[in-house]
Amino acid sequence: MAEKDWIARYLAPLAQGAGAAGLRDDVAQLDVSDPVAITTDAMVEGVHFLGTDPIDTVARKLVRTNVSDLLASGAEPAEALLVLGWPKGRGEAEIAAFAAALGDELAAWGAQLIGGDTVTSPGGLFLSLTLTGRCFKAGPVRRMGAKPGDLVWLTGTIGAAARAWQDHSRGIPSPFPGSSGADAYRLPVLPPLATAKLVAGHASAAMDVSDGLLIDAKTLAEASGVAMELDLDAVAFAGGETDLAEMLKLATWGDDYQTLFTAPENNSKLISREAKNSGIEITSIGKIVAGSGLSLERGGRNVNLPETLGFEHG
Amino acid sequence: MAEKDWIARYLAPLAQGAGAAGLRDDVAQLDVSDPVAITTDAMVEGVHFLGTDPIDTVARKLVRTNVSDLLASGAEPAEALLVLGWPKGRGEAEIAAFAAALGDELAAWGAQLIGGDTVTSPGGLFLSLTLTGRCFKAGPVRRMGAKPGDLVWLTGTIGAAARAWQDHSRGIPSPFPGSSGADAYRLPVLPPLATAKLVAGHASAAMDVSDGLLIDAKTLAEASGVAMELDLDAVAFAGGETDLAEMLKLATWGDDYQTLFTAPENNSKLISREAKNSGIEITSIGKIVAGSGLSLERGGRNVNLPETLGFEHG
Repeated sequence: MAEKDWIARYLAPLAQGAGAAGLRDDVAQLDVSDPVAITTDAMVEGVHFLGTDPIDTVARKLVRTNVSDLLASGAEPAEALLVLGWPKGRGEAEIAAFAAALGDELAAWGAQLIGGDTVTSPGGLFLSLTLTGRCFKAGPVRRMGAKPGDLVWLTGTIGAAARAWQDHSRGIPSPFPGSSGADAYRLPVLPPLATAKLVAGHASAAMDVSDGLLIDAKTLAEASGVAMELDLDAVAFAGGETDLAEMLKLATWGDDYQTLFTAPENNSKLISREAKNSGIEITSIGKIVAGSGLSLERGGRNVNLPETLGFEHG
Repeated sequence: MAEKDWIARYLAPLAQGAGAAGLRDDVAQLDVSDPVAITTDAMVEGVHFLGTDPIDTVARKLVRTNVSDLLASGAEPAEALLVLGWPKGRGEAEIAAFAAALGDELAAWGAQLIGGDTVTSPGGLFLSLTLTGRCFKAGPVRRMGAKPGDLVWLTGTIGAAARAWQDHSRGIPSPFPGSSGADAYRLPVLPPLATAKLVAGHASAAMDVSDGLLIDAKTLAEASGVAMELDLDAVAFAGGETDLAEMLKLATWGDDYQTLFTAPENNSKLISREAKNSGIEITSIGKIVAGSGLSLERGGRNVNLPETLGFEHG
């Protein structure tokens, strides 16, 4: 089947908005009624997923890695452009399953497909998604902006992906993808959509945790020109982990896709109440002080930083 | 060298706009002071370029294929997000040359880098660019909208890429990339930036010619629900070709990246004058009539359509 037939059959039905023009044109129009944030993330077979991974989880992960960036910037997902590098060996049933999962996942976040490009890949499958977001403020919340005296907040739990990968490696069966638990290494569990509004309303700085809590916390502190002190006991680790070595392993593994943000201490009650009302699990895990760098404590005592703070992009 | 160091050294200097925030964040902000058109095009080693092609021409072609889409939609290039799937085997000198050419080419079209993602490719190099454009009208000019009585216009010449490829295959040396002529198969020659304003001001429908003049003309006619009649003698073929078989070969080869548009006949004098004043080579090559499909004539006599009208995406 030719590219344009695949697009017409499987992808065009996902593109119902006026700006998409049914994917018939090379160019789409963005909705710019609110300030627009934009992000793009790519995934490559053999690097970000395995060739044997179910194609629907690949589609959902592609959407979620981009959504995670937007939520952490205080923006709600809006419009998507898909680049699909499709190997000849993958047949029509796979593209159908891919498109169905992509459309379902986009819709779950309030987004829709408006354009893209499909090409043949001589190697493995590769994909990228460009996702726009409607900002609740004049623009996206940045990594820079944390101030001494701010508290550090974190949504959800840290280490679900690490634990799921360990289970998988031991041959422990996975529950249904996305249900949390053992498939979290394959399919990130994100905080709810309402996180975008919470971040926009209160955060002085924010980013998503994708490379590991410690490395991302250090990145935010560096971007803001401040120091961050984290209390490991305050972090909600998967499975309620309390062993220090295990806590550090989970805090440096990555693939958590939770939102890390800072906010003035005065806002704390309001943040807790809004989060609770919106079904967002959230914890205050530390504070911002003058200086630079990241430090850890446990029970009021300093904990040495591990040598590797997270995933370093090679 | 780690991904973030490469980004900081070679790509961040290209990102000077406020919305880019120095490429330090996962999310960028779009300038939405005018209506925004958006397009994305991907290129894959071994499919859209050769592994031995100079890396600077790969960067420039990536930009130009996207710019071509925008010009034909009546929008001026504005902001770019780059996805780079970089093989481990390509070293730092190549990324430096790539970034320099990318920045130079974006600047030549008035655009700038605001974000992206770099990943490791286990296979060959792959790239995609998402490019936004400022619309001169309320939105992009579409493929649909051509009306019976409209004239058909085409910028530049058809067949430069085909002729350049033939020269290359015969071992005839190439002039400097981009200077036109023998490297046009590697590096598309686009109409000037002013084409965007001309299209926005006059076109009832438009698209770029990238898969071959005949197949793209048929696509525009189908999208608009009309028939198109083209006069082959009116088309400016590379090298002034007049042999019918050769003309048909050039008209179905593709990689021309010129703008095809339709406009009411009343506007013809204005279009010609504006094009001349803006340095846009332009020719009226046919007309729109009621009905469907594409027909060709030469010297007032019908010419049978060739079996293949252009490049069909596999």
